[in-house]
Amino acid sequence: MSALIHPTALVSPRARLGAGVSIGPFTVVHEDVEIGDGSRIDGHCEIGYPTPLAQGQPLIIGAGALIRSHSVFYAGSRFGQGLVTGHRVTVRELTQAGQNFQIGTLGDIQGHCEIGHHVRTQSSVTIGQKSVVGDFVWLFPGVVLTNDPNPPSNDLLGVTLEDYVVVAVKATLLAGVTIGRGSFVAAHALVGQDMPEDSLVSGAPAKRMCKASDLRVKGDLRQRAYPWRHRFVRGYPEAVVQAWAEGVERFDFGTPGSEHA
Amino acid sequence: MSALIHPTALVSPRARLGAGVSIGPFTVVHEDVEIGDGSRIDGHCEIGYPTPLAQGQPLIIGAGALIRSHSVFYAGSRFGQGLVTGHRVTVRELTQAGQNFQIGTLGDIQGHCEIGHHVRTQSSVTIGQKSVVGDFVWLFPGVVLTNDPNPPSNDLLGVTLEDYVVVAVKATLLAGVTIGRGSFVAAHALVGQDMPEDSLVSGAPAKRMCKASDLRVKGDLRQRAYPWRHRFVRGYPEAVVQAWAEGVERFDFGTPGSEHA
Amino acid sequence: MSALIHPTALVSPRARLGAGVSIGPFTVVHEDVEIGDGSRIDGHCEIGYPTPLAQGQPLIIGAGALIRSHSVFYAGSRFGQGLVTGHRVTVRELTQAGQNFQIGTLGDIQGHCEIGHHVRTQSSVTIGQKSVVGDFVWLFPGVVLTNDPNPPSNDLLGVTLEDYVVVAVKATLLAGVTIGRGSFVAAHALVGQDMPEDSLVSGAPAKRMCKASDLRVKGDLRQRAYPWRHRFVRGYPEAVVQAWAEGVERFDFGTPGSEHA
Repeated sequence: MSALIHPTALVSPRARLGAGVSIGPFTVVHEDVEIGDGSRIDGHCEIGYPTPLAQGQPLIIGAGALIRSHSVFYAGSRFGQGLVTGHRVTVRELTQAGQNFQIGTLGDIQGHCEIGHHVRTQSSVTIGQKSVVGDFVWLFPGVVLTNDPNPPSNDLLGVTLEDYVVVAVKATLLAGVTIGRGSFVAAHALVGQDMPEDSLVSGAPAKRMCKASDLRVKGDLRQRAYPWRHRFVRGYPEAVVQAWAEGVERFDFGTPGSEHA
Repeated sequence: MSALIHPTALVSPRARLGAGVSIGPFTVVHEDVEIGDGSRIDGHCEIGYPTPLAQGQPLIIGAGALIRSHSVFYAGSRFGQGLVTGHRVTVRELTQAGQNFQIGTLGDIQGHCEIGHHVRTQSSVTIGQKSVVGDFVWLFPGVVLTNDPNPPSNDLLGVTLEDYVVVAVKATLLAGVTIGRGSFVAAHALVGQDMPEDSLVSGAPAKRMCKASDLRVKGDLRQRAYPWRHRFVRGYPEAVVQAWAEGVERFDFGTPGSEHA
Repeated sequence: MSALIHPTALVSPRARLGAGVSIGPFTVVHEDVEIGDGSRIDGHCEIGYPTPLAQGQPLIIGAGALIRSHSVFYAGSRFGQGLVTGHRVTVRELTQAGQNFQIGTLGDIQGHCEIGHHVRTQSSVTIGQKSVVGDFVWLFPGVVLTNDPNPPSNDLLGVTLEDYVVVAVKATLLAGVTIGRGSFVAAHALVGQDMPEDSLVSGAPAKRMCKASDLRVKGDLRQRAYPWRHRFVRGYPEAVVQAWAEGVERFDFGTPGSEHA
């Protein structure tokens, strides 16, 4: 099956569209773009927005992507298979993300980020330049990862979130902070210092309150809430879920975007 | 007067448009859509976005609606008359809202919500799935109603806001919370527990500080600030304003969306 | 060089476009619009959105503007030269801004504002009606300037930010507050009272903690962080940077928008 391009869409003849790719009405696809098989791009999008900051790199979107309406992707970023976005997402240049990245509506990813596999963000999340996000990370609505330690300045110190970190609604990570594997950052937290793995982080300014793994599920005090992979597996690949059941928590998915190298 | 469809708009011949409906440039109207008389849909919108999650239900928009540019409405939701939105609003499936719902710019209503009559939100408000919002509720910029008590989980516990509740700028309501009639939730509050009616709720974590009706208007200590209907009536129907003046506070507007049943 | 209008753009023949202006695909330019020489408007925008609230005033955009995709500008506002926006910006009527105004992605400027010269906002900033913003002000992601002292009410009391004020991520300024020249409002601050010049403002509710000029650069305790103009000059005009080096901090750029009077 060849590409299904809406007659009102404007698709550069140089864009490389895989088999079965569909492009919605009024969407613009620029020339430095490669979209994997079976992907669907909704209407009113702009894909491969040109910028000299992309250093001549193309935009590469892996197979099976679903990009919802009014979204903008710059040239120079690359995404593993299974990318899914909400509406009005903006992703700038030179970001790399792994498989099954899910970006919520109104997400704003400012470029030069390294994002792992199976990362999920909900609505209105802002990921500042130079952020580094591990595998299986969750960002809830309104979370911001900042990057300027001395606003305004020329310094750009990205935030690092290790694997399995969960950041709850409207928490903010300040420039240069590292949050350890499996930590839970509570709602409205303002985090200005590094946190070791398995931390429950809360408050403004935020402190480490206890282990994340000490938290219990609301309504069932016998069940640990974290690591969440022991109680929540919806939408993850069967092989991953199986491995979690066997106690595996680290995976070698390859470097995000490297399948295209 | 028949419908006024811009020549660049893409309107399904199966969409049912009332008399005098106008559709702006580059707007897409899908087939499972009913738009009431005299409504105006601006440009760059997507109306009746198809999804299997809508369970075959149409999108029904009552008479006299004004939907501003770049907005997206899914199939399967229904709105009473007088809907007004700002720009870039997103409303997902299976939400029902009453008369004169006003949604501010960048509003994000995630579906499966029950929203009463005369509800007004300002910019960048996020209403999570399964929220229940009463009549005459106000949500100020950046307010988020969440729904996951154990993030991430399969649990979905919506927030309930009773009639006349006011939630000030950037307050967050955590999953499953009920805020009683006429309460005022202060700016930046993080509310994790139920509050009785007429509460002033403040802080993070938020507590009940006093009665909302103890608050005075800034600059005029002799005047009570709440219930606000005693001092602010702009844009409400004359019959409602008259009833308020006579001490009535409960109205039988019918079930939101039921006029279409 | 005459205007470069994409064939899918809808540009009113009454719009006044300067030399070399480019208009992107699917963008709508209404009639009451004047765009200065060399400006570029991306695709999917709506420029000069008509409203009776504009009182018949045109939208005037100075020379050298860059307006990124999916943005909406109402009739009745005016901007000095060098306006730059991110994507999905909304600017309503009767706002005036000076030279080199930079508005981040998802910015929401609600009209009736007075904004000085060289003001920069990052993503998702909301500037409420009747705000007054001085020269060289910085607003970081998620900042909100409110205007209703008794929500909801008919009162509209804008916030005033004097020259060189910096407001960090997600801080909120409550209605009617004035922040003095050169102050720094910290992340997540909720500011409900006036602050004198050179204040470090922090907390919720926010207090004056010390002088902003007492703060040191992170990682270099010998260097003062504020006034920031002594250590950060990227993108400002050479004459301004030179004047700063000579100790000048006040400039006569003329009234914002007055060059068009």
